[in-house]
Formats: sequence, C-alpha cells, structure tokens
Amino acid sequence: MRIQVINPTTTTSWEEASRLAYAAAASSTTEVSIRSLPHGTPSVESRRDVAVVAPGVIQAAREAESDGVDAIAVDCMLEPGVHSAREIVDVPVIGPAQAAMHLAATVGHGFSVLAMADNRRPLIEELAHRYGLRGRLRSVRPLGMGVLQLDDDPEATLAAAVARAAEAVLQDGADVIIPGCTGLAGKAPLIQAALRERDIEVTVIDPPAAVTRALETMVSLGVAPSRRSYPRRAPKPVREPGELSASAGRPA
Amino acid sequence: MRIQVINPTTTTSWEEASRLAYAAAASSTTEVSIRSLPHGTPSVESRRDVAVVAPGVIQAAREAESDGVDAIAVDCMLEPGVHSAREIVDVPVIGPAQAAMHLAATVGHGFSVLAMADNRRPLIEELAHRYGLRGRLRSVRPLGMGVLQLDDDPEATLAAAVARAAEAVLQDGADVIIPGCTGLAGKAPLIQAALRERDIEVTVIDPPAAVTRALETMVSLGVAPSRRSYPRRAPKPVREPGELSASAGRPA
Amino acid sequence: MRIQVINPTTTTSWEEASRLAYAAAASSTTEVSIRSLPHGTPSVESRRDVAVVAPGVIQAAREAESDGVDAIAVDCMLEPGVHSAREIVDVPVIGPAQAAMHLAATVGHGFSVLAMADNRRPLIEELAHRYGLRGRLRSVRPLGMGVLQLDDDPEATLAAAVARAAEAVLQDGADVIIPGCTGLAGKAPLIQAALRERDIEVTVIDPPAAVTRALETMVSLGVAPSRRSYPRRAPKPVREPGELSASAGRPA
Amino acid sequence: MRIQVINPTTTTSWEEASRLAYAAAASSTTEVSIRSLPHGTPSVESRRDVAVVAPGVIQAAREAESDGVDAIAVDCMLEPGVHSAREIVDVPVIGPAQAAMHLAATVGHGFSVLAMADNRRPLIEELAHRYGLRGRLRSVRPLGMGVLQLDDDPEATLAAAVARAAEAVLQDGADVIIPGCTGLAGKAPLIQAALRERDIEVTVIDPPAAVTRALETMVSLGVAPSRRSYPRRAPKPVREPGELSASAGRPA
Amino acid sequence: MRIQVINPTTTTSWEEASRLAYAAAASSTTEVSIRSLPHGTPSVESRRDVAVVAPGVIQAAREAESDGVDAIAVDCMLEPGVHSAREIVDVPVIGPAQAAMHLAATVGHGFSVLAMADNRRPLIEELAHRYGLRGRLRSVRPLGMGVLQLDDDPEATLAAAVARAAEAVLQDGADVIIPGCTGLAGKAPLIQAALRERDIEVTVIDPPAAVTRALETMVSLGVAPSRRSYPRRAPKPVREPGELSASAGRPA
Amino acid sequence: MRIQVINPTTTTSWEEASRLAYAAAASSTTEVSIRSLPHGTPSVESRRDVAVVAPGVIQAAREAESDGVDAIAVDCMLEPGVHSAREIVDVPVIGPAQAAMHLAATVGHGFSVLAMADNRRPLIEELAHRYGLRGRLRSVRPLGMGVLQLDDDPEATLAAAVARAAEAVLQDGADVIIPGCTGLAGKAPLIQAALRERDIEVTVIDPPAAVTRALETMVSLGVAPSRRSYPRRAPKPVREPGELSASAGRPA
Repeated sequence: MRIQVINPTTTTSWEEASRLAYAAAASSTTEVSIRSLPHGTPSVESRRDVAVVAPGVIQAAREAESDGVDAIAVDCMLEPGVHSAREIVDVPVIGPAQAAMHLAATVGHGFSVLAMADNRRPLIEELAHRYGLRGRLRSVRPLGMGVLQLDDDPEATLAAAVARAAEAVLQDGADVIIPGCTGLAGKAPLIQAALRERDIEVTVIDPPAAVTRALETMVSLGVAPSRRSYPRRAPKPVREPGELSASAGRPA
Repeated sequence: MRIQVINPTTTTSWEEASRLAYAAAASSTTEVSIRSLPHGTPSVESRRDVAVVAPGVIQAAREAESDGVDAIAVDCMLEPGVHSAREIVDVPVIGPAQAAMHLAATVGHGFSVLAMADNRRPLIEELAHRYGLRGRLRSVRPLGMGVLQLDDDPEATLAAAVARAAEAVLQDGADVIIPGCTGLAGKAPLIQAALRERDIEVTVIDPPAAVTRALETMVSLGVAPSRRSYPRRAPKPVREPGELSASAGRPA
Repeated sequence: MRIQVINPTTTTSWEEASRLAYAAAASSTTEVSIRSLPHGTPSVESRRDVAVVAPGVIQAAREAESDGVDAIAVDCMLEPGVHSAREIVDVPVIGPAQAAMHLAATVGHGFSVLAMADNRRPLIEELAHRYGLRGRLRSVRPLGMGVLQLDDDPEATLAAAVARAAEAVLQDGADVIIPGCTGLAGKAPLIQAALRERDIEVTVIDPPAAVTRALETMVSLGVAPSRRSYPRRAPKPVREPGELSASAGRPA
Repeated sequence: MRIQVINPTTTTSWEEASRLAYAAAASSTTEVSIRSLPHGTPSVESRRDVAVVAPGVIQAAREAESDGVDAIAVDCMLEPGVHSAREIVDVPVIGPAQAAMHLAATVGHGFSVLAMADNRRPLIEELAHRYGLRGRLRSVRPLGMGVLQLDDDPEATLAAAVARAAEAVLQDGADVIIPGCTGLAGKAPLIQAALRERDIEVTVIDPPAAVTRALETMVSLGVAPSRRSYPRRAPKPVREPGELSASAGRPA
Repeated sequence: MRIQVINPTTTTSWEEASRLAYAAAASSTTEVSIRSLPHGTPSVESRRDVAVVAPGVIQAAREAESDGVDAIAVDCMLEPGVHSAREIVDVPVIGPAQAAMHLAATVGHGFSVLAMADNRRPLIEELAHRYGLRGRLRSVRPLGMGVLQLDDDPEATLAAAVARAAEAVLQDGADVIIPGCTGLAGKAPLIQAALRERDIEVTVIDPPAAVTRALETMVSLGVAPSRRSYPRRAPKPVREPGELSASAGRPA
Repeated sequence: MRIQVINPTTTTSWEEASRLAYAAAASSTTEVSIRSLPHGTPSVESRRDVAVVAPGVIQAAREAESDGVDAIAVDCMLEPGVHSAREIVDVPVIGPAQAAMHLAATVGHGFSVLAMADNRRPLIEELAHRYGLRGRLRSVRPLGMGVLQLDDDPEATLAAAVARAAEAVLQDGADVIIPGCTGLAGKAPLIQAALRERDIEVTVIDPPAAVTRALETMVSLGVAPSRRSYPRRAPKPVREPGELSASAGRPA
C-alpha cells in the first residue's frame, strides 16, 4: 500500500521528519512518501493560511491519485483542503485532527488538545464541532512557547507538553491527550510515560500515527468517504487557478 | 455606508443582477458595489470550488478594505472564504447562508432551504451544523430543474420553488423558507404570496437581502467578528500564491 | 419606519433615556417612540414580574399596531410578552435578549452576559436555551452592585462592567460580551474600548441597538415571525382581564 | 396531603370532571380540590391565553398556599404561570406537560403527544425543548376533530386518539403516548388497551395522573423547586395589576 | 402495594438499613421488602461488578415477580441489571440514579452528584448521558473519605457531604444535589438544612426515596417500561448460566 | 500480533465462519483466533442476553490476556461485556458497533444499520447514543426475514439487505450503510456493488473488518482505553460467580 503525505506548506526542510512520523505507524507493506506544495505559505497557522494552501492540496491530491497512491494524508492539524479533496479523488483522504479525535472518542470520554499557541483554540474547537465531537473536547491547552524554543529545546518542549497535559487531566477532566503540535509528533509515548510517573494514567494519541492507521484501515476495507456526503460536481467547463475566466452557466 | 459584494466567481455577466439583489434591501444611504474574481471558477458548486476560489475572495476582501468599504458580502450560499477573510480585514464579512439562517432562527422554529440540485444537501447541512443551527434545518429541497431551464423559464422556476416550499412546510415541518438558489434572489415575496394563496402562512427569507441588512446592522453598531474567534496570525514572512517558497520556522 | 418601544414597567421616569438607547442605532428615516404600561410593576426582575406585566405588553402591542407602527420592541432582557404578542400582531416584535444573542452567535463562538444581580443567571440561561444558543452562553456575570450605586455612580458601574467582562473573556472563554443591564445601555463602545486597552480584543453588543437593527431588518425585508410558529388561535369569545367569566367550549 | 388544582380558565363547568381526573391517581390520604380563576379567558389555547391567565394563576397559587395546601397543580398542557408561581410559593407547583414528559422519558425512548389541533404543535415542541426533552419528542399528532365533536362523541374521540397513537408509534417511532387533550383525561388505560388489541404494545400516560403522583412525590420527599433555579426577587415596592404606578428604582 | 428492593450484592449485613431507606418514603399501604443476591460480589464499585451481578439481579427480579410483588427497585447507583430486567418482568423496575436524576431535572436546572470516590465519576457521567441528562449534570464530587471512615464516623461523613455540596453549588453551578453514596441514604434533609444555614438554598434529593416514589407512581398509573423500548426477545431455547451449550439458530 | 475474537455465545458451530470474517481484514502478520463461552446463551438477541453472557466475556477476556493476546474483539453488535472488560485487561477491547459507527462517522454524515429484526432497533439506538453518535444514526432497517431463511437462502438475504440499504439511503438520508447482522458479515463489498448498480453511491462498512482494523490500530499505536474512563476498582476481596458470599466493607 502506498500512502502519500501532503505537506501543505512550501517548507521542504521538515519533509523527512514528517514522513518518518507517518511511516512509524505503518505496516511493513506500506510505503510512505511525502510531497510539499510548490506554492503557498511556509506554514499553516490560521484560517487564511488554510484557504491559501487548500487549492494546492487539491492539486497535489489529484496528482498523487494519478501517480497511483492508495491513500492520502494531509499533514496539518488544521486540515486544509481535506474535505474538498474528497470530492476530487477516489482514494481515502484524511487529516490528523479527524483521525486523532475519533480515536480519542473511542478510547475515552473526553480529550484535550495541546496546541502551540492560544490562537489555535478557536480553530481546534471548530474542527471538533465539525466532526460532531465538540462535547468531547475538554480543552485546548497552548504550550506557551516560542517557535524557536520548540525546535531548539526538545526537552523543554516535552516538559511543557507534560505539564499542560497534566493540567488538562486534573483541571479540565480530560481522559485522553492529543498533542496537536507538529513539534510533538512521535512524542506520544514519552508524554504518556511521563504522565504515568506522576500517577496520571491517560492515553496519549499521536496524530500522524492515527492518520496512517486510519488510512490503512480504509484501504484495507475498501472504504472511502461516501459519495453521498462528498458528491462529485456535475461536469462543467472548469477553470483552474490562473486560467482566464469567462461567463458561464449560472450557478446556484 | 459602502458595501462591497464579492462575486466569488469569474462570471461577470450576472454582476448587475446580483448587485441589485443586495441593493434592494439597502438603506438609502448605503451604496452597493460588486466585483468578480479575476481568477477562479465560473461558478461555485462544490467544496472543491469553494477551496479554489477562497484565496481570491480573501484577496478581494483585502482590496475592498483598502478601497475603504465598510462591509463585505460574499455572494454564494456556500460562503467561500468568508471565515478566512474575517481574520484579514477589520470590516464585517458575511455570507448569505449565515445571515439567512440566523434570521430564520429568530422568526421561526425550523427552516428549509431550497437548493438547485440534490448534491447541495450535504454542504447546506454542514453550514447549518457549523452555525449551530443544524437542529433547526428541517430539510434541503432541491428544485429539480436544469440550470438552463432555471434561467430561461423564470415562471417554471418560481412554480417549482413554490411546490418545493409547500412540501417543506407540509411534509418536513418547516416554518420558514430560505430560497438558496441565486436564480431565486429577490423572489422571496412572490413565493411567500403564492404560498399564502395555498393557505400556507410561512415566512420566506431572501438571502441577499438578509446579508445587506446584517452588514448594515454590524456597521451601524460597530460590531465586527470577534478577534478572539478570528485571531490574527502572528506576523511571519508570508508568501502569496505564486511566490516561490522557502523553508521557514516550523509551524504547529 | 416607526418603531414602538414598549417599556414593560410602570416607571415612566426612564422613558426618554430608553427611547434614546433604541433611537441611537436607528436609520435616519426611522422614528422611535416609547410607551410605558398603565398597570404592572415598577420594574421587571423575576419570572413573576414577567407574568404580571405580559398581558399589559400584549395590550400595548395591540394598541401600537392599531396606531400604525411598523415594529415593536419590548425593552427588557427578560422579554415579557414578546412571544405572546407575536401571535396577536402582524408587525415584528422582538426583545433585547434574542436580538443580542443571535447577533453574538453570528460574530463569535461564545458570549457572556453581564447582569445586574446573580439571581438573573437562571433566567438568562433559560432564554439562551429557548433560543437554541445555550451552548454558546459561556457565563452570566453579575455586576455585584446595588441598584442605587448603578444609577448614582456611572463610573463605578462602567468599571465593574469592564472588570466582569474581562473575567468572562479570560476565565470563561467568552468571545463576545452582552451588557444585559439597562444601566449599561449605550455603553458597549466604551466597554469595548476599555477592554482593548487591556489587550482584550472582543466584540461588545448593545442590546437596544441590536433590537432596533433587527426590527429595521425585518420591516425592510417584510419578514415577521412565522404564522406556523406563532399561529393565531381560532376565534372564540375572548374575555379580557377584568371581564366576568362564563363557561364555554372545552379547550384542550 | 392537600393538592390544589388550579383550573387556569374561567370555565367552572368542567371543574368536577377535572378534579376527578387528578383525584383518581391520588393516595387515599390525599385530598384534591379545584379552583378556577375569577378573571381570565374561558380556555387556554395559545401563548396569548397563557400570558393573559398567568397572573391569575400566580394569585391563585398564593391564595392556595395561604389556605395551607401542600402542593399545586396547574390544569393545562400549556402550563400558564407554573414557573412564575414557583418563585412565589414554597410548596411544589407542576403542570401536566412537565410531569408527563419526564415520566415518559423514564419509561421509554421517545414519546408522542396527542393534541386537539395542529396549532398546538409549536407550543408543545417549545415545552419539550424547555424541559430538555425535545430529542425525545417524536411527534405531535392532532386529533383533527372539532371541539364540539370532542365533547359530544366520546367514542369517536377515543377512536381518533387510538388511530393517531397508532400512527405515532408506527410512523414516528414513538414508544410512549401522552394524550395531551383535556377531553382525553383518564382515558390512558382505554387507549393503551385498544392499542394492545392492534398488537401495539406501548405505554400511555395520563397527564393529570402524572401530576398528582409527581406532587405526592415532592411533598413526601420534601422536595420543592430549587431556590437557585427559582430565586425570590429582592423585596421591592410591588404593584399588583390594577394599582397605580410610580417611578421607582431602576431595574436591570 | 409491595415493593421488592434488590440488594445487588451478597452483603446481607446492611439489608435492614437499606430497606428502611426505601420504606421511609413509602405510602402507608406500601410494603417494602429486600433481598440480596445468593452469588455475586460483596459490593458494586465498577463496570465489572455491574456485569458480574446483573444476571443475579435479573434472576432475583424474575423471582420477585413470581412472588407477586408490584414493583422492583435495584439498590445501587450504578444500576446493575435494571434495563435487562425490564425486558423480563412486567412490573416496573428502576434504580436510584434514573429516579433521582429525573426528579432533579424537574425541580432545577443543573444537578451534582456526591460520590464516594473519584473513580465513580465516569460511571455517573455515563448514566446521566444514557438518560439524556448529561447536559444537566454539573459535576460529580467525590467525598474523599475512606470506606471505613464513612461507616465509622457519620458526623465527619455528613460534614464532608455538606462541604462537597457547597462546592458543587458555588463552584459548579449546581441547583440540586444528589447524594449518591449508600452511606448518605436518608441524609438528604440534614444536608439541605446544613446548606441552608450557610445561606445556600438548594434542593437535596435522596435517591432511595426517589425510587420508592417513582415506583408507587408507576404502579398507581399502571405505567411500566414500554415494550417498544424493552421488547421481549422471541422465544428460543434459552440456556441459563451453568447449562451446557449447544449450537442453535444463528443470531444476528 | 494476536487478536482474540470472543464469540459471546455457546454456539461453537459458527466459530470458523466468524473467525474468517475477522481474519479477512487482518494484516499478514496478525493471527486471529476465536473462542466461544463455556456457559451462557446460544445467541445474544436482547439486553437480558447481554447481561447473562457479560460475565463470561469478562472471564474470557481475562484468560485471553493471560494467554498473551494483543487485542480482544467481542463478536456481537450488542457488545456484551466490552466496557466491563476494559476495566479488567490492559489490552484493547472493542466490539463491532463502536468500531463500525466511528468509521462511518469519519467517512460520511449519517449512517443506517441493517438489523435482523425490528426489536434490535432500540438497542442499536442506545449504542449509538452511548457513543455520542445518535445524531448520525439515520435509521435502523430490519431485514424482515426469519432466521432460518437468513441462513438457508444467502441470495435472498443479500437481496433484502440491498433493498433495505437502498431505502435507508433514499428515504432516510443515510450516506453510509452498516450491515449489522452476523449473517451479512463479509458481504459489505457485494452490497456496495449492488447499490452502485442502482446508481446509489454509498459506503458500506463491514463491522468485523472494522473491529480488526481498529484493534490493529490500537495495538500499533500503543493506545488502549483510558484508565481515567475505565478505572480499575480498588482491590477488595472479590467473589467470582459461584462463590459463596459474605458481608464485607460497605460500598457506595
């Protein structure tokens, strides 16, 4: 099975680290590749970024399907283009928020998300609401660290994650923790172990790992997003970004 | 007050009809202008179209704000780019689904939306869910007409709208009707009158009119989308679509 | 357009101040008048007060409609008689809680209401629940001041409102603030500005202003509460309060 | 124990029939009396009627408490004045909709209400929503008979009730039936038996009986509506309907 | 009327105390008896315990019905076997959580449950969710005492209950308190009085008392759990626990 | 990886067919074994059956963990003992309803379950409610066939499943179909293909396959049900079914 991870940014420098985060949870017969976007933004941190990169994600998904991949992951908790791409391609497409949140809802009563900054809170809340899981989202806890520190001081990052996770459990009533920062990819077992040392027995879910397994499940079962929920649009003279426009049949 | 209607398509031929639909509900001191997108798709009929045109809507919103408009409408029931644009500009931005649905929830217990085709149903349901009004959406009733007939035979279109609205009331329990097709813009009073002739006393809400009034309300009250819900992203080296990319600080 | 504000109390002394609060948000062509009740209670502070004054509100609405007004506001966050009056008159009727809460839900994810005293909390919660917005109500924060101080010391009142609003944002997660005390009518911009000075960027909504704009919207669009939701009762020998009673056809 | 049934209308002719409906479910040591309102309307069939009679219900409740009754029932599915009266008196007050709906939710998954006319539907839906049980209300089924026929032809009334109940079960998925018409008081066992003959095994709940038992429960347990939910208002110079008004301390 | 209390444990030593807790709220003509299980666990403190004792509860319910009792109570907040038994017997069966929670929802807006230990929280939350009342459950507050202390020091237990109840009201917004520990059975009036001394006017509901009254209501009204919600299974060759098994018709 | 399927009945004759249904979706390195219960019922078709077999499921889970399996499936849509077993063992435990429903919610907006008989409806609805997905369950459609026919005439069974699935899509608005009968295990692709021939493009999910993949995901990620949601009970002198009982420390 071939999984294509789409890095929805133009920043190629962390491609290999991301690919490994997804590949770590893959079966031995699954091959994971990654591609970044040729155009877009260097990172995705807002609704505006989501909108700007979504067309590139759709295009990348289309290309990936042409290349014959079996499934597509979009490597960003804000999930740019995921639902649009489902209309376009026939292979399963999923992002880390949906995969991790549904898994969290299966194994516990309430989950909290660790986010890099406080301004992610409304976006994470919106995603949980969209997936019908708002009632299970106990809190969004920002790490409260600068980006550079996040990269430069993995130990401090981990310590902050564990501290926020403990607060989520003890103050917000979370039973499951989702580390929702790219910088924490693959750290779920470490966080879970550190919490256990503090006598806090909760489950910690790694979003990229959850994505890989969800895609393997869908491919294995022959299950893709339902065409009733994600209908193809009727054929029409489509104009890709950059094309000149012309008047056409009136849309609704 | 100046309201900028953004037609999120490249189809300039219906600009004036659309502008009039918005202007019809405007106060005498409100000036309504319209602009289409230079690039994008000729119509917006799917999630993929929404994604493709959203960056153009954001760009158009930014330009409109620079031009000094007081408020921005996005002329499409699928509301491409509306929430992203709210992060970018300080003037109010709203689309017809949110404006009409909240007004419907104010004046009745349950509403139905008339849509052009059945494949709009999941998208309308998603929007209602997003706005916390899924429990109020009684049904999405497709007109069941081809696009051409919609344009060419206004009488048949109106008759179909009235028939679907009657079904929504009598079979689905709707108390309010939202004609969600562009082709029905401005027809709300006609539909309401035709229903009354059949002894069906319900309220029919014209989405463009609801948008214009919502924007006038927001401007008048100095109320814009909350920065807590729509936070600005921290400044960073941003790359517009088309720019070359480069690696940058790692995002979450 | 003529808007009739009904002061649902017998206290005529604050008529002009209230009228101005509603008129402040009105279009230039809108005329706002106010009338108090001939009988009732001097203020409305409980469910019992709501019940006692509601018949007077209905009667006042009937008279206002006879006088040819275009829309009716009921000047009280507890909204006495609003829904009953909708059955009786054909012009739109709305109160400040519904108008402000729906506007709040349009521009943010969660709102808090500032109330004069803690015993308003259950009533405000009930209204939010009634309007389907309980999930958006983050908190009801009482000012914690005596009535006299509220009137006599506007500066202290404003300071208390700002303090409570800040708590609502920082502790309860509110994105929008609704000052739900009559004594704070028209102060929304001041509160918003004071919060911004503390780096708290939220939207503050003035309920009387929201009412005026909602009524202008409804009149402008020809939209009144749906007769399906607010059916007229079948004609029967009605007895106004004070009439002698007699047995009649058995009701359900 | 003494239960006071308040007939919230001026129609004294059905007092004894109503009293018997409540007394039928009472323990041997419970005494049930009934009083009608001196002023009001001959029946309660709309929100306007609810508003008009509510002050009389409050006054009757106050008098009943002075008379030393232990509990108060308000004999009307639309429950005029019930929640207001709870602020005023210390004895339990309840109406047939709340009592029957909570009992229905205890013994089944979904209930339907039989109503006299279709225009009761939105009011019954509002009550179910108010009590947090909207998700359990499967349908409101109108009997579709005239008032006179309801009184004059009990056999046809019962047949209509059984037919509507069967539809509620088979078409709407109801598991429990609440006959919500006064004319069906005491008929629950007959309806249940008639349904069983058609092989439809559901539970049918008589609202007056449910009220009597709920009140006995509350009195027996010493449980009355919580003062936190139904706070007393601060003492103030109150003006009963009919008193002259005067300006007073400003309310919120 | 005869009520059979089933003690779902093997611990007979507290039979009489439990029986009295149920009998205390009974009408004079109601007779309350208790029986413990011959096999099972000495107490019920987890989902595993619930599963282990449920077959014994079903068997005890079947025997009680054969003995001619009119109604059955299962004496445990975790309600083992209650819903299964409803399929088997025709008399009403109820447990203390459902009875107390529905009564709490009738008299207030939000309730809190006092539990012995923190590990009851997820189970109480699940029950509230099951009964559609999760939105009303403000908190589960553990007493934080050892079992022995609970038995040996009633005064300290009561003090802890009052302290936790006060926190539930003041910090969690509860309007009604449900003491959900067996050790607090019958103490509701004491807790309510102690809270009132601290100026906290809330309602405190004794679960065994609520059960007795709910059962008397159901028997009196001839209302049992609906056969549509609790269908009998089609007759088949049934094998009781302990029987040898054999292959049979394939189940779904 | 070793997955233990627990057949929660005493009917060993369909062990191999069931094992194959689970093994079909397994990775090449996963080994699937099955064990039936030594005592219990020949099939599980009601809440009573669920209660009767649950202790056996717990015991089987304990033994399976001792045998060193990595994960446990309980082969029954009614999921007897699943949540209790989670308290007892440290390996993941899941049943087909939860696995299939969460997968359905990931790939579509609303799902319907095909059940063997109409009396499964309330039990399936309860499970969907328990998992927070009641709002996504569009309908439960019974096949309307006798058990024998289900086994003897696979072609007719498949035809009935396709017919009911089509009704679920076209009449109930389902986007995803879950064949919830054991007799349909492994038939999901056939049903999906037959629907596609009728131009109904929906996703059909095979519950045993969904279970196998969910377990592989959990084992692969090191994710088990959260101990906060499924706490171990404090150690106490436990008595297995069959042991003699004795009084012990008082439980809550």
